[in-house]
Amino acid sequence: MRSFMGRDMLSLKDLERNEFFHVLDVAEELEPIARERRNVDLLSEKTLVVAFYQPSTRTRLAHEAAMHRLGGHVTGFADAKMTRAGDFYQESIKDTVKMLEFYGDVIVMRHFQQGAPHEAAKWASIPVINGGDGWGEHPTQILTDLYTVYREKGQIDGLKWLAVGDMRMRTMHSLAYALTQFDCPITFVSPPEMSLTDEFKAELEQYSLDFKEAGHVEEAIADADVILVEPVVQPDYTKSRDERAGDVGLTPANYKITRDLLANKAKSDAILLHSLPRMDEIPPDVDITKWSRYWQEAFNGVVVRMALLALVLGAME
Amino acid sequence: MRSFMGRDMLSLKDLERNEFFHVLDVAEELEPIARERRNVDLLSEKTLVVAFYQPSTRTRLAHEAAMHRLGGHVTGFADAKMTRAGDFYQESIKDTVKMLEFYGDVIVMRHFQQGAPHEAAKWASIPVINGGDGWGEHPTQILTDLYTVYREKGQIDGLKWLAVGDMRMRTMHSLAYALTQFDCPITFVSPPEMSLTDEFKAELEQYSLDFKEAGHVEEAIADADVILVEPVVQPDYTKSRDERAGDVGLTPANYKITRDLLANKAKSDAILLHSLPRMDEIPPDVDITKWSRYWQEAFNGVVVRMALLALVLGAME
Amino acid sequence: MRSFMGRDMLSLKDLERNEFFHVLDVAEELEPIARERRNVDLLSEKTLVVAFYQPSTRTRLAHEAAMHRLGGHVTGFADAKMTRAGDFYQESIKDTVKMLEFYGDVIVMRHFQQGAPHEAAKWASIPVINGGDGWGEHPTQILTDLYTVYREKGQIDGLKWLAVGDMRMRTMHSLAYALTQFDCPITFVSPPEMSLTDEFKAELEQYSLDFKEAGHVEEAIADADVILVEPVVQPDYTKSRDERAGDVGLTPANYKITRDLLANKAKSDAILLHSLPRMDEIPPDVDITKWSRYWQEAFNGVVVRMALLALVLGAME
Repeated sequence: MRSFMGRDMLSLKDLERNEFFHVLDVAEELEPIARERRNVDLLSEKTLVVAFYQPSTRTRLAHEAAMHRLGGHVTGFADAKMTRAGDFYQESIKDTVKMLEFYGDVIVMRHFQQGAPHEAAKWASIPVINGGDGWGEHPTQILTDLYTVYREKGQIDGLKWLAVGDMRMRTMHSLAYALTQFDCPITFVSPPEMSLTDEFKAELEQYSLDFKEAGHVEEAIADADVILVEPVVQPDYTKSRDERAGDVGLTPANYKITRDLLANKAKSDAILLHSLPRMDEIPPDVDITKWSRYWQEAFNGVVVRMALLALVLGAME
Repeated sequence: MRSFMGRDMLSLKDLERNEFFHVLDVAEELEPIARERRNVDLLSEKTLVVAFYQPSTRTRLAHEAAMHRLGGHVTGFADAKMTRAGDFYQESIKDTVKMLEFYGDVIVMRHFQQGAPHEAAKWASIPVINGGDGWGEHPTQILTDLYTVYREKGQIDGLKWLAVGDMRMRTMHSLAYALTQFDCPITFVSPPEMSLTDEFKAELEQYSLDFKEAGHVEEAIADADVILVEPVVQPDYTKSRDERAGDVGLTPANYKITRDLLANKAKSDAILLHSLPRMDEIPPDVDITKWSRYWQEAFNGVVVRMALLALVLGAME
Repeated sequence: MRSFMGRDMLSLKDLERNEFFHVLDVAEELEPIARERRNVDLLSEKTLVVAFYQPSTRTRLAHEAAMHRLGGHVTGFADAKMTRAGDFYQESIKDTVKMLEFYGDVIVMRHFQQGAPHEAAKWASIPVINGGDGWGEHPTQILTDLYTVYREKGQIDGLKWLAVGDMRMRTMHSLAYALTQFDCPITFVSPPEMSLTDEFKAELEQYSLDFKEAGHVEEAIADADVILVEPVVQPDYTKSRDERAGDVGLTPANYKITRDLLANKAKSDAILLHSLPRMDEIPPDVDITKWSRYWQEAFNGVVVRMALLALVLGAME
């Protein structure tokens, strides 16, 4: 297996099967630190640079929390508007990264443009982790989902997935790429206008992913061991934030996971994942059911980032 | 006395008399660290999560500074707009907190909605400190005021208070609740439209607080040992920030503490508190008088937060 | 030589020749820490307060990175809008600083008003470093430029400078003041409307700086050992950020350093500095030429701030 030290984490296409398992195993090894709520010294000599050009709570803070749990330092920006990159200079990724690489030892970048972290990695002498790039990918989120499954089920192979949401989104891309490395049939359920693009389907077929598409969660929920949900209701981005305030539509029943649906149709040991935040695709009364694992994912999100940071910084083999 | 470890700090109604003194004593014990300007290792294994949905300099930075003085780590957000909570998702407090609780070991929350930190505490498995909630309370600020009095006077009981400002504000609520535990008569001076609400007065009477109301600082200043001032001039929040820029009215003499007033009417050993920022209710020429203690409060604000963090995290008994 | 411990770093007019060399030597001594990408414990007992009233990437993050490399803590604000100083209170520098001085052990301040850090230093009991004040100065940036020259050339005296840009800007002021302490002739090239003010020229003549002005880079590039470039194209600040978005003019040839110009006219061992961000005054194809040192400056910017922080905090003699 290639060493993770110094490697970028841009796309789950770049990870081989045994590398996925290695990340999950290192995460499991580090998990007690987070569970016992203590910060250790593993990365006390290292600094994380967060470069977030788009709003984020979970992805940015989970990386920061992971760095703190491992005793490291954190610098960077949570808002491109407060930087030269965000003002009239519209500084290039290259110019920004040729600076950021000296401010720390690993960069986590979220960017509204697909491919921006790849461009950053091209110029940076330190590892770049993709914290979500436009319609591109969101590899650390999907590693968190996989870790949640791995810890709950003790396995990944052989489990059937149901993914609900906007199939053009970055998490769905990372999910599909990840599952190509495992024996995991998946059914994608989305509104027609949010379905897998033809280009992406062609790519998935090349990878021999066992996938199908459906128009209603009821068509696929009975078989699913893992149900991963994302919003399908989108705000009207042509309106200002204020105008949008009350503008949250209702999720159609086709794409909604209710308590009744779970009780009547889902496997009793299926697990329900959501990276959050949510609209109304999972109503709050699902939170206390036996299927819900999305709170657990917040915890696991820290653990997985601990593993990734320790690995790319060479603190864990 | 109940242990502070793991406890929330939401309202000063929740603190008993001996608990107030315990916080003040722990603060006094930790004060040398801040005075000697050094960071120690007491909380090096812990992380503070700041969750600020409203602008703040003092409250947020005093908590951060306190955490740093105790060697701890800090993560979180200073601006809800940069999070999913602040954008169109308008994520619920529950959903946000079920995430934040894994990013650190204690949360300090400021929120524009009264009761938001209480809602957070309901869901969080780690302590929540109220950093100011709408019209609700601001317990850590008033603990800072009490500590300032305690350190200056060596006592709290038996001192007469004069409070000037908007009596509907959160600091006044926390102040009144705190004083119910001590032998401290207080006179509230405010414009009529900013006076104590009937509901709050009824509550205070139940607590047997010895309070009265007056319309002019001159009516109460001669007896006061402690003069606590807040702004009574408010901006017109129906205007945008830019429209408001020059829109700061003048504080009427009734609610203003001038150098002449202090020299002519105040007790020679009275102390003058203000949590700052100020409008013109205390003119700058008061700063160098013997009464002023508001600079000292900034220092004390760090010391008190050191005590609270050390207590709720179990690092001090 | 006066001790640096406890001193403010407001203007390069305040530094004597041997003090410049001392800062550069301390930087050189600390450089291996940054080069080896590790954080040490030199300032682990200290906290840096960043007080940035204007957007910045490099200056803020280079100070933060320097503090982290030396094991220190960081708090503060990157955006005045999120503080009481930035909202309707428009809190005075005095009131803000009488608070910030208790939140850490050294303040780095950027402010849109010239002289603001000087006002801060007047009230603060801890050192204040000027991170750029309006049209005033930008001392830490020019120390970074000097360090880059010193490390590359092994000397400062006897080198000829060419400075291109807006001569009313703070970096140019700091540069000119710095060079008065060395034997460094300099030619300033700028558009007529951005030339040295008469007042500033009179000041420079008093300092016996050997300077001249020219209207085209070609007039001065052949002799230059050091070429320092800043933008001359400015956005139209009367427009909103959105209106300005595509509003970046082209830099006239007079003020532009192209690959051809360097190849045909520049000394083969000249070095080209730019504090970045840039508009188009240095096209990207210059980046890989032998003259370019602006990436190196990003690294040196951390090293120089490490030296300044260690010196004013008394951790290095």
